[in-house]
Amino acid sequence: MGGPEVERLIALFAKLPGLGPRSARRIVLKLLRERETRLLPLAEAIKAAADSVRTCTNCGNLDSTDPCTICATASRENTICVVETVADLWALERALIYRGTYHVLGGLLSAIAGRGPEDLTITALLTRLAQHKPDEIILAMPATVEGAATGHYLMEKLSPLSIPISRLAQGVPMGGSLEFLDEGTLATALAARRIG
Amino acid sequence: MGGPEVERLIALFAKLPGLGPRSARRIVLKLLRERETRLLPLAEAIKAAADSVRTCTNCGNLDSTDPCTICATASRENTICVVETVADLWALERALIYRGTYHVLGGLLSAIAGRGPEDLTITALLTRLAQHKPDEIILAMPATVEGAATGHYLMEKLSPLSIPISRLAQGVPMGGSLEFLDEGTLATALAARRIG
Repeated sequence: MGGPEVERLIALFAKLPGLGPRSARRIVLKLLRERETRLLPLAEAIKAAADSVRTCTNCGNLDSTDPCTICATASRENTICVVETVADLWALERALIYRGTYHVLGGLLSAIAGRGPEDLTITALLTRLAQHKPDEIILAMPATVEGAATGHYLMEKLSPLSIPISRLAQGVPMGGSLEFLDEGTLATALAARRIG
Repeated sequence: MGGPEVERLIALFAKLPGLGPRSARRIVLKLLRERETRLLPLAEAIKAAADSVRTCTNCGNLDSTDPCTICATASRENTICVVETVADLWALERALIYRGTYHVLGGLLSAIAGRGPEDLTITALLTRLAQHKPDEIILAMPATVEGAATGHYLMEKLSPLSIPISRLAQGVPMGGSLEFLDEGTLATALAARRIG
């Protein structure tokens, strides 16, 4: 419906994360109906983002400058938080608690997906550590099997550098009701309980 | 995060139907990470759609031609199905059962939203009916209060033309389990039961 251009636009939207043919159709119809206020501004914004955004050659973040704003901010603490994706980096930044720098791995080790250390930015991380020693490395991997495997690998690889290495705490998430938590999280939270 | 261009792109995506800041961020990150295969094709497809799509001056459908493909197909039956939106029109076309033409109202009568007959394409419909009398008018309004009000209004307005006017059947939707249906639907389905 709507001609080949509209079909193609729907197909592209439908492949975006969290969307499918139905929601894509709904979005495209909305865009077409509000051509001046939605469709054209979106086209322009995509063009502007495509033109401006680059990958930070230091940490792998996406920003309109290279090095990115975080790497370029001299007042940030001399620590490196290693994350899987730019999405994770942004999530940590939104928490407004971490004041150091980052390193984006670009994935996790996975035997199933056939992703080895050479597919991640581990060499770049080691080069970076050799050039400038941070006060601490924080491994902020997701609490999954692949996250744990990647964390172990990095721990082994980085421990000879004698830099303090930490990991994120695991436990009950904020607002989490015990009743609906999985057993693994409950077991971890209980095992890692703190007095006082 | 990501510079002002990315912020703006996220803000625009977040305002699309069914999306919010979180899903918009996820989509934009995906787009930025796959610049060549996703971001640029999407920008191009939006541009192509914006350039090609127009509103059919006859029925209100969106298509790359005016009159739209449906209005231009001589073999379609000489009936008019009146729908609220282009989305409804496309949904009916996907059902592959209706072979006539359409008329998109562009909304429903609503005292609350302050939408009167002059805000819908009712005058255009009457002009169209005066020029070319269809064999039947099907009022395919949503089964809501506003849909019913609009249906009643159209029924009154169109009955002097002595064209057969029908409405969509109401009842149990396909695959619908009685247990989870609302009382209104069940009552309608029971009242409109058919023998045999």
